[in-house]
Amino acid sequence: MTALSPRRAGRRAGRRAGESRTREAILDAARRSFAEHGYDGATIRGIAAAAGVNPALVHHFYGTKEGLFAAAMKLPVLPSEIVASALGAARDRLGDDFRAHLGEVVVGTMLRAWDVTEVRAAFLGLLRTAATTDQGLAMLREFVTSTIVASLVRAAGLGDDAEGRYRAALVASQIVGLGFTRYLLGLEPVASAGIEELVAAIGPAVQRYLTGDLSR
Amino acid sequence: MTALSPRRAGRRAGRRAGESRTREAILDAARRSFAEHGYDGATIRGIAAAAGVNPALVHHFYGTKEGLFAAAMKLPVLPSEIVASALGAARDRLGDDFRAHLGEVVVGTMLRAWDVTEVRAAFLGLLRTAATTDQGLAMLREFVTSTIVASLVRAAGLGDDAEGRYRAALVASQIVGLGFTRYLLGLEPVASAGIEELVAAIGPAVQRYLTGDLSR
Repeated sequence: MTALSPRRAGRRAGRRAGESRTREAILDAARRSFAEHGYDGATIRGIAAAAGVNPALVHHFYGTKEGLFAAAMKLPVLPSEIVASALGAARDRLGDDFRAHLGEVVVGTMLRAWDVTEVRAAFLGLLRTAATTDQGLAMLREFVTSTIVASLVRAAGLGDDAEGRYRAALVASQIVGLGFTRYLLGLEPVASAGIEELVAAIGPAVQRYLTGDLSR
Repeated sequence: MTALSPRRAGRRAGRRAGESRTREAILDAARRSFAEHGYDGATIRGIAAAAGVNPALVHHFYGTKEGLFAAAMKLPVLPSEIVASALGAARDRLGDDFRAHLGEVVVGTMLRAWDVTEVRAAFLGLLRTAATTDQGLAMLREFVTSTIVASLVRAAGLGDDAEGRYRAALVASQIVGLGFTRYLLGLEPVASAGIEELVAAIGPAVQRYLTGDLSR
Protein backbone atom coordinates (compact mmCIF):
# COMPACT_ATOMS: atom_id res chain seq x y z
CA MET A 1 0.00 0.00 0.00
CA THR A 2 1.33 3.46 -0.85
CA ALA A 3 1.18 6.05 1.92
CA LEU A 4 -0.92 8.99 0.68
CA SER A 5 -2.15 12.08 2.48
CA PRO A 6 -5.92 11.86 3.04
CA ARG A 7 -6.42 14.80 0.70
CA ARG A 8 -4.50 13.28 -2.25
CA ALA A 9 -6.06 9.86 -1.68
CA GLY A 10 -9.51 11.46 -1.71
CA ARG A 11 -8.81 13.37 -4.92
CA ARG A 12 -7.39 10.27 -6.60
CA ALA A 13 -10.29 8.10 -5.55
CA GLY A 14 -12.71 10.78 -6.79
CA ARG A 15 -10.97 11.06 -10.12
CA ARG A 16 -10.83 7.28 -10.43
CA ALA A 17 -14.53 6.97 -9.63
CA GLY A 18 -15.33 9.66 -12.21
CA GLU A 19 -13.21 7.99 -14.89
CA SER A 20 -14.77 4.66 -14.05
CA ARG A 21 -18.28 6.12 -14.48
CA THR A 22 -17.27 7.68 -17.81
CA ARG A 23 -15.83 4.38 -19.04
CA GLU A 24 -19.00 2.56 -18.01
CA ALA A 25 -21.14 5.14 -19.86
CA ILE A 26 -19.01 4.65 -23.00
CA LEU A 27 -19.22 0.85 -22.80
CA ASP A 28 -23.00 1.01 -22.25
CA ALA A 29 -23.37 3.27 -25.29
CA ALA A 30 -21.07 0.95 -27.27
CA ARG A 31 -23.08 -2.18 -26.42
CA ARG A 32 -26.34 -0.44 -27.45
CA SER A 33 -24.79 0.94 -30.63
CA PHE A 34 -23.16 -2.35 -31.74
CA ALA A 35 -26.45 -4.16 -31.10
CA GLU A 36 -28.47 -1.55 -33.00
CA HIS A 37 -26.16 -0.77 -35.92
CA GLY A 38 -23.95 -3.87 -36.10
CA TYR A 39 -20.16 -3.84 -35.92
CA ASP A 40 -19.64 -2.12 -39.28
CA GLY A 41 -22.42 0.46 -38.79
CA ALA A 42 -21.43 1.58 -35.29
CA THR A 43 -18.99 4.52 -35.15
CA ILE A 44 -16.77 5.84 -32.37
CA ARG A 45 -18.20 9.32 -33.06
CA GLY A 46 -21.80 8.07 -32.60
CA ILE A 47 -20.93 6.11 -29.47
CA ALA A 48 -19.13 9.12 -27.98
CA ALA A 49 -22.17 11.32 -28.69
CA ALA A 50 -24.51 8.80 -27.05
CA ALA A 51 -22.24 8.69 -23.98
CA GLY A 52 -21.95 12.49 -23.91
CA VAL A 53 -18.13 12.53 -24.26
CA ASN A 54 -15.56 13.68 -26.81
CA PRO A 55 -14.62 11.05 -29.46
CA ALA A 56 -10.96 11.70 -28.62
CA LEU A 57 -11.59 10.38 -25.11
CA VAL A 58 -13.01 7.13 -26.53
CA HIS A 59 -9.90 6.73 -28.69
CA HIS A 60 -7.73 7.54 -25.67
CA PHE A 61 -9.41 4.85 -23.53
CA TYR A 62 -9.93 2.09 -26.10
CA GLY A 63 -7.77 2.79 -29.17
CA THR A 64 -9.61 1.38 -32.17
CA LYS A 65 -13.20 0.33 -32.77
CA GLU A 66 -12.05 -3.29 -32.30
CA GLY A 67 -10.60 -2.36 -28.91
CA LEU A 68 -13.85 -0.70 -27.90
CA PHE A 69 -15.85 -3.73 -29.09
CA ALA A 70 -13.54 -6.08 -27.14
CA ALA A 71 -13.99 -4.00 -23.96
CA ALA A 72 -17.78 -3.72 -24.42
CA MET A 73 -18.10 -7.48 -25.00
CA LYS A 74 -15.61 -8.22 -22.17
CA LEU A 75 -13.21 -9.99 -24.57
CA PRO A 76 -9.94 -10.38 -22.66
CA VAL A 77 -7.86 -10.15 -25.86
CA LEU A 78 -8.09 -8.66 -29.35
CA PRO A 79 -8.77 -11.54 -31.76
CA SER A 80 -6.87 -9.85 -34.59
CA GLU A 81 -3.83 -9.49 -32.29
CA ILE A 82 -3.89 -13.18 -31.34
CA VAL A 83 -3.92 -14.14 -35.02
CA ALA A 84 -1.27 -11.63 -36.06
CA SER A 85 1.13 -12.30 -33.18
CA ALA A 86 0.86 -16.09 -33.44
CA LEU A 87 1.50 -16.01 -37.18
CA GLY A 88 4.34 -13.52 -36.69
CA ALA A 89 5.99 -15.75 -34.08
CA ALA A 90 5.63 -18.79 -36.34
CA ARG A 91 7.17 -16.88 -39.24
CA ASP A 92 10.18 -15.99 -37.07
CA ARG A 93 10.52 -19.58 -35.87
CA LEU A 94 9.94 -21.48 -39.09
CA GLY A 95 11.38 -19.11 -41.71
CA ASP A 96 10.77 -20.44 -45.20
CA ASP A 97 8.74 -23.40 -43.88
CA PHE A 98 6.21 -20.95 -42.48
CA ARG A 99 3.60 -21.22 -45.20
CA ALA A 100 3.67 -25.04 -45.16
CA HIS A 101 2.75 -25.11 -41.44
CA LEU A 102 0.15 -22.33 -41.32
CA GLY A 103 -2.72 -24.73 -40.69
CA GLU A 104 -1.07 -26.27 -37.62
CA VAL A 105 -0.15 -22.80 -36.34
CA VAL A 106 -3.74 -21.55 -36.65
CA VAL A 107 -5.28 -24.61 -34.97
CA GLY A 108 -2.67 -24.64 -32.18
CA THR A 109 -3.05 -20.90 -31.59
CA MET A 110 -6.82 -21.14 -31.23
CA LEU A 111 -6.72 -24.19 -28.94
CA ARG A 112 -4.12 -22.57 -26.67
CA ALA A 113 -6.13 -19.30 -26.57
CA TRP A 114 -9.31 -21.22 -25.65
CA ASP A 115 -7.41 -23.01 -22.87
CA VAL A 116 -7.44 -19.67 -21.00
CA THR A 117 -10.68 -19.61 -19.00
CA GLU A 118 -11.51 -15.95 -19.74
CA VAL A 119 -10.93 -16.35 -23.49
CA ARG A 120 -13.07 -19.48 -23.61
CA ALA A 121 -15.84 -17.73 -21.65
CA ALA A 122 -15.78 -14.76 -24.02
CA PHE A 123 -15.88 -17.05 -27.10
CA LEU A 124 -18.82 -19.02 -25.71
CA GLY A 125 -20.55 -15.75 -24.79
CA LEU A 126 -20.21 -14.54 -28.39
CA LEU A 127 -21.56 -17.87 -29.72
CA ARG A 128 -24.54 -17.64 -27.35
CA THR A 129 -25.27 -14.03 -28.29
CA ALA A 130 -25.13 -14.93 -31.98
CA ALA A 131 -27.40 -17.93 -31.50
CA THR A 132 -30.08 -16.05 -29.56
CA THR A 133 -30.64 -12.66 -31.20
CA ASP A 134 -30.57 -11.46 -34.80
CA GLN A 135 -28.73 -8.35 -33.68
CA GLY A 136 -26.11 -10.43 -31.90
CA LEU A 137 -25.78 -12.50 -35.04
CA ALA A 138 -25.20 -9.52 -37.35
CA MET A 139 -22.72 -8.10 -34.85
CA LEU A 140 -20.72 -11.34 -34.65
CA ARG A 141 -20.77 -11.84 -38.44
CA GLU A 142 -19.44 -8.36 -39.15
CA PHE A 143 -16.90 -8.60 -36.33
CA VAL A 144 -15.57 -11.96 -37.59
CA THR A 145 -15.38 -10.62 -41.16
CA SER A 146 -13.81 -7.25 -40.32
CA THR A 147 -11.24 -8.46 -37.82
CA ILE A 148 -10.53 -12.20 -37.76
CA VAL A 149 -10.98 -13.02 -41.44
CA ALA A 150 -9.23 -9.80 -42.46
CA SER A 151 -6.25 -10.38 -40.16
CA LEU A 152 -6.00 -14.02 -41.27
CA VAL A 153 -6.01 -12.92 -44.92
CA ARG A 154 -3.24 -10.39 -44.18
CA ALA A 155 -1.09 -12.51 -41.86
CA ALA A 156 -1.32 -15.64 -44.02
CA GLY A 157 -0.51 -13.65 -47.16
CA LEU A 158 -3.77 -14.62 -48.85
CA GLY A 159 -5.01 -12.26 -51.54
CA ASP A 160 -7.65 -9.77 -50.34
CA ASP A 161 -9.93 -10.95 -53.14
CA ALA A 162 -12.86 -13.38 -53.42
CA GLU A 163 -10.54 -16.42 -53.31
CA GLY A 164 -8.64 -15.18 -50.25
CA ARG A 165 -11.88 -14.47 -48.38
CA TYR A 166 -13.31 -17.86 -49.42
CA ARG A 167 -10.23 -19.63 -48.02
CA ALA A 168 -10.41 -17.62 -44.79
CA ALA A 169 -14.14 -18.36 -44.42
CA LEU A 170 -13.50 -22.11 -44.89
CA VAL A 171 -10.88 -21.90 -42.13
CA ALA A 172 -13.44 -20.08 -39.97
CA SER A 173 -15.99 -22.87 -40.59
CA GLN A 174 -13.58 -25.53 -39.23
CA ILE A 175 -12.30 -23.39 -36.34
CA VAL A 176 -15.76 -22.26 -35.20
CA GLY A 177 -16.96 -25.86 -35.55
CA LEU A 178 -14.03 -27.10 -33.46
CA GLY A 179 -14.74 -24.51 -30.74
CA PHE A 180 -18.48 -25.29 -30.79
CA THR A 181 -17.95 -29.07 -30.68
CA ARG A 182 -15.14 -29.15 -28.12
CA TYR A 183 -16.13 -26.39 -25.69
CA LEU A 184 -19.86 -25.75 -26.06
CA LEU A 185 -21.21 -29.16 -27.08
CA GLY A 186 -18.48 -31.11 -25.27
CA LEU A 187 -18.60 -33.91 -27.86
CA GLU A 188 -16.25 -36.75 -26.92
CA PRO A 189 -13.56 -37.77 -27.67
CA VAL A 190 -12.79 -34.38 -29.29
CA ALA A 191 -13.71 -32.56 -26.05
CA SER A 192 -10.93 -34.18 -24.04
CA ALA A 193 -8.33 -34.79 -26.79
CA GLY A 194 -4.90 -33.20 -26.31
CA ILE A 195 -3.93 -30.07 -28.20
CA GLU A 196 -1.09 -31.78 -30.10
CA GLU A 197 -3.39 -34.62 -31.18
CA LEU A 198 -5.97 -32.15 -32.52
CA VAL A 199 -3.31 -30.04 -34.23
CA ALA A 200 -2.08 -33.15 -36.07
CA ALA A 201 -5.62 -34.17 -37.02
CA ILE A 202 -7.09 -30.77 -38.03
CA GLY A 203 -4.00 -28.72 -39.00
CA PRO A 204 -3.65 -30.33 -42.46
CA ALA A 205 -7.33 -29.66 -43.25
CA VAL A 206 -6.89 -25.98 -42.39
CA GLN A 207 -3.62 -25.94 -44.34
CA ARG A 208 -5.46 -27.19 -47.42
CA TYR A 209 -8.12 -24.49 -47.04
CA LEU A 210 -5.36 -21.86 -46.87
CA THR A 211 -3.01 -22.96 -49.62
CA GLY A 212 -4.28 -26.16 -51.28
CA ASP A 213 -6.19 -26.95 -54.46
CA LEU A 214 -9.86 -26.58 -53.50
CA SER A 215 -11.32 -27.73 -56.82
CA ARG A 216 -11.04 -31.45 -56.09
CA MET B 1 -64.20 -33.36 -49.63
CA THR B 2 -65.79 -36.67 -48.65
CA ALA B 3 -69.55 -36.63 -48.11
CA LEU B 4 -70.23 -37.86 -44.59
CA SER B 5 -73.41 -38.04 -42.55
CA PRO B 6 -73.34 -35.41 -39.78
CA ARG B 7 -73.20 -38.16 -37.18
CA ARG B 8 -70.15 -39.97 -38.67
CA ALA B 9 -68.36 -36.66 -39.32
CA GLY B 10 -68.91 -35.71 -35.71
CA ARG B 11 -67.54 -39.03 -34.44
CA ARG B 12 -64.50 -38.86 -36.73
CA ALA B 13 -63.75 -35.26 -35.87
CA GLY B 14 -64.14 -36.15 -32.20
CA ARG B 15 -61.81 -39.12 -32.50
CA ARG B 16 -59.31 -37.04 -34.48
CA ALA B 17 -59.44 -34.25 -31.92
CA GLY B 18 -58.93 -36.81 -29.14
CA GLU B 19 -55.94 -38.39 -30.88
CA SER B 20 -54.50 -34.97 -31.58
CA ARG B 21 -54.81 -34.06 -27.87
CA THR B 22 -53.16 -37.34 -26.89
CA ARG B 23 -50.29 -36.77 -29.31
CA GLU B 24 -49.83 -33.23 -27.99
CA ALA B 25 -49.78 -34.53 -24.40
CA ILE B 26 -47.11 -37.10 -25.35
CA LEU B 27 -44.97 -34.49 -27.15
CA ASP B 28 -45.29 -32.09 -24.20
CA ALA B 29 -44.19 -34.83 -21.82
CA ALA B 30 -41.35 -35.75 -24.18
CA ARG B 31 -40.04 -32.17 -24.40
CA ARG B 32 -40.09 -31.87 -20.60
CA SER B 33 -38.48 -35.26 -20.14
CA PHE B 34 -35.71 -34.75 -22.73
CA ALA B 35 -34.96 -31.33 -21.19
CA GLU B 36 -34.88 -32.74 -17.66
CA HIS B 37 -33.15 -36.09 -18.18
CA GLY B 38 -31.27 -35.54 -21.47
CA TYR B 39 -31.63 -37.71 -24.55
CA ASP B 40 -30.03 -40.78 -23.02
CA GLY B 41 -31.80 -40.52 -19.68
CA ALA B 42 -35.33 -40.02 -21.03
CA THR B 43 -37.34 -43.23 -21.57
CA ILE B 44 -40.47 -43.96 -23.58
CA ARG B 45 -41.91 -45.63 -20.47
CA GLY B 46 -41.33 -42.50 -18.35
CA ILE B 47 -42.72 -40.18 -21.03
CA ALA B 48 -45.80 -42.36 -21.44
CA ALA B 49 -46.39 -42.31 -17.68
CA ALA B 50 -46.05 -38.50 -17.58
CA ALA B 51 -48.55 -38.20 -20.44
CA GLY B 52 -50.92 -40.72 -18.80
CA VAL B 53 -50.89 -43.18 -21.72
CA ASN B 54 -49.68 -46.72 -22.40
CA PRO B 55 -46.04 -46.99 -23.63
CA ALA B 56 -47.33 -49.13 -26.53
CA LEU B 57 -49.28 -46.13 -27.79
CA VAL B 58 -46.13 -43.99 -27.83
CA HIS B 59 -44.34 -46.70 -29.83
CA HIS B 60 -47.37 -46.91 -32.14
CA PHE B 61 -47.36 -43.16 -32.82
CA TYR B 62 -43.61 -42.45 -32.95
CA GLY B 63 -41.71 -45.74 -33.36
CA THR B 64 -38.36 -45.30 -31.62
CA LYS B 65 -37.05 -42.83 -29.07
CA GLU B 66 -35.29 -41.01 -31.94
CA GLY B 67 -38.64 -40.72 -33.73
CA LEU B 68 -40.28 -39.31 -30.61
CA PHE B 69 -37.40 -36.85 -30.15
CA ALA B 70 -37.67 -35.75 -33.79
CA ALA B 71 -41.42 -35.15 -33.40
CA ALA B 72 -41.02 -33.33 -30.09
CA MET B 73 -38.28 -31.08 -31.52
CA LYS B 74 -40.24 -30.67 -34.78
CA LEU B 75 -37.41 -32.21 -36.83
CA PRO B 76 -38.87 -32.95 -40.26
CA VAL B 77 -36.55 -35.94 -40.79
CA LEU B 78 -34.63 -38.50 -38.74
CA PRO B 79 -30.94 -37.51 -38.85
CA SER B 80 -29.78 -41.12 -38.63
CA GLU B 81 -32.00 -42.00 -41.61
CA ILE B 82 -30.56 -39.17 -43.72
CA VAL B 83 -27.03 -40.39 -42.99
CA ALA B 84 -27.83 -44.06 -43.52
CA SER B 85 -29.85 -43.62 -46.72
CA ALA B 86 -27.38 -41.21 -48.32
CA LEU B 87 -24.45 -43.51 -47.57
CA GLY B 88 -26.46 -46.51 -48.77
CA ALA B 89 -27.32 -44.78 -52.07
CA ALA B 90 -23.69 -43.79 -52.57
CA ARG B 91 -22.58 -47.36 -51.91
CA ASP B 92 -25.00 -48.61 -54.57
CA ARG B 93 -23.85 -45.96 -57.05
CA LEU B 94 -20.10 -46.03 -56.47
CA GLY B 95 -19.49 -49.68 -55.59
CA ASP B 96 -15.85 -50.26 -54.68
CA ASP B 97 -15.05 -46.52 -54.94
CA PHE B 98 -17.50 -45.85 -52.15
CA ARG B 99 -15.04 -45.50 -49.31
CA ALA B 100 -12.80 -43.12 -51.29
CA HIS B 101 -15.71 -40.67 -51.80
CA LEU B 102 -17.32 -40.82 -48.36
CA GLY B 103 -16.27 -37.27 -47.46
CA GLU B 104 -17.91 -35.76 -50.53
CA VAL B 105 -21.02 -37.85 -49.93
CA VAL B 106 -21.35 -36.67 -46.33
CA VAL B 107 -20.81 -32.97 -47.16
CA GLY B 108 -23.17 -33.10 -50.18
CA THR B 109 -25.85 -34.93 -48.19
CA MET B 110 -25.79 -32.37 -45.38
CA LEU B 111 -25.82 -29.36 -47.73
CA ARG B 112 -28.74 -30.77 -49.73
CA ALA B 113 -30.66 -31.59 -46.53
CA TRP B 114 -30.11 -28.05 -45.22
CA ASP B 115 -31.38 -26.64 -48.53
CA VAL B 116 -34.86 -27.78 -47.44
CA THR B 117 -36.34 -24.89 -45.44
CA GLU B 118 -37.87 -27.07 -42.70
CA VAL B 119 -34.65 -29.05 -42.17
CA ARG B 120 -32.58 -25.87 -41.98
CA ALA B 121 -35.07 -24.33 -39.51
CA ALA B 122 -34.91 -27.44 -37.31
CA PHE B 123 -31.09 -27.48 -37.39
CA LEU B 124 -30.89 -23.79 -36.46
CA GLY B 125 -33.48 -24.37 -33.72
CA LEU B 126 -31.31 -27.15 -32.23
CA LEU B 127 -28.22 -24.92 -32.39
CA ARG B 128 -30.10 -22.10 -30.64
CA THR B 129 -31.45 -24.43 -27.94
CA ALA B 130 -27.96 -25.79 -27.33
CA ALA B 131 -26.44 -22.31 -27.17
CA THR B 132 -28.97 -20.93 -24.69
CA THR B 133 -29.65 -23.56 -22.02
CA ASP B 134 -27.45 -26.16 -20.33
CA GLN B 135 -30.30 -28.66 -20.59
CA GLY B 136 -30.63 -28.01 -24.33
CA LEU B 137 -26.91 -28.49 -24.63
CA ALA B 138 -26.83 -31.85 -22.86
CA MET B 139 -29.82 -32.97 -24.93
CA LEU B 140 -28.17 -32.03 -28.23
CA ARG B 141 -24.82 -33.58 -27.23
CA GLU B 142 -26.39 -36.92 -26.32
CA PHE B 143 -28.64 -36.85 -29.38
CA VAL B 144 -25.71 -36.16 -31.74
CA THR B 145 -23.65 -38.90 -30.07
CA SER B 146 -26.40 -41.53 -29.91
CA THR B 147 -27.83 -41.04 -33.40
CA ILE B 148 -25.68 -39.06 -35.86
CA VAL B 149 -22.21 -40.14 -34.71
CA ALA B 150 -23.40 -43.72 -34.17
CA SER B 151 -25.03 -43.98 -37.62
CA LEU B 152 -21.99 -42.38 -39.26
CA VAL B 153 -19.73 -44.90 -37.54
CA ARG B 154 -21.96 -47.77 -38.74
CA ALA B 155 -22.66 -46.54 -42.27
CA ALA B 156 -19.07 -45.52 -42.96
CA GLY B 157 -17.78 -48.81 -41.60
CA LEU B 158 -15.66 -47.13 -38.92
CA GLY B 159 -14.84 -49.23 -35.89
CA ASP B 160 -17.12 -48.63 -32.90
CA ASP B 161 -14.06 -47.94 -30.77
CA ALA B 162 -12.25 -44.81 -29.55
CA GLU B 163 -10.67 -44.22 -32.98
CA GLY B 164 -13.95 -44.58 -34.85
CA ARG B 165 -15.71 -42.19 -32.50
CA TYR B 166 -12.79 -39.71 -32.71
CA ARG B 167 -13.03 -39.74 -36.51
CA ALA B 168 -16.80 -39.26 -36.41
CA ALA B 169 -16.47 -36.39 -33.89
CA LEU B 170 -13.91 -34.65 -36.14
CA VAL B 171 -16.38 -34.96 -39.02
CA ALA B 172 -19.07 -33.50 -36.75
CA SER B 173 -16.80 -30.53 -35.89
CA GLN B 174 -16.43 -29.61 -39.59
CA ILE B 175 -20.08 -30.27 -40.48
CA VAL B 176 -21.50 -28.36 -37.50
CA GLY B 177 -19.04 -25.54 -38.23
CA LEU B 178 -20.12 -25.46 -41.88
CA GLY B 179 -23.79 -25.29 -40.89
CA PHE B 180 -23.11 -22.62 -38.25
CA THR B 181 -20.98 -20.49 -40.60
CA ARG B 182 -23.14 -20.83 -43.72
CA TYR B 183 -26.67 -20.76 -42.31
CA LEU B 184 -26.57 -19.13 -38.88
CA LEU B 185 -23.67 -16.69 -39.17
CA GLY B 186 -24.11 -16.19 -42.94
CA LEU B 187 -20.36 -15.65 -43.40
CA GLU B 188 -19.54 -14.78 -47.02
CA PRO B 189 -18.47 -16.10 -49.44
CA VAL B 190 -19.22 -19.52 -47.86
CA ALA B 191 -22.84 -18.48 -47.24
CA SER B 192 -23.65 -18.10 -50.95
CA ALA B 193 -21.20 -20.65 -52.43
CA GLY B 194 -22.70 -23.44 -54.55
CA ILE B 195 -23.09 -26.95 -53.16
CA GLU B 196 -20.69 -28.50 -55.68
CA GLU B 197 -18.02 -25.91 -54.91
CA LEU B 198 -18.29 -26.60 -51.16
CA VAL B 199 -18.29 -30.37 -51.69
CA ALA B 200 -15.03 -30.06 -53.65
CA ALA B 201 -13.49 -27.78 -51.01
CA ILE B 202 -14.62 -29.56 -47.83
CA GLY B 203 -15.19 -33.16 -48.96
CA PRO B 204 -11.48 -34.10 -48.93
CA ALA B 205 -11.06 -32.71 -45.38
CA VAL B 206 -13.96 -34.88 -44.18
CA GLN B 207 -12.57 -37.84 -46.16
CA ARG B 208 -9.28 -37.49 -44.33
CA TYR B 209 -11.05 -37.42 -40.95
CA LEU B 210 -12.88 -40.64 -41.92
CA THR B 211 -10.11 -42.72 -43.48
CA GLY B 212 -6.82 -40.77 -43.53
CA ASP B 213 -3.72 -40.74 -41.37
CA LEU B 214 -4.51 -38.32 -38.54
CA SER B 215 -1.11 -38.41 -36.87
CA ARG B 216 0.49 -35.85 -39.22
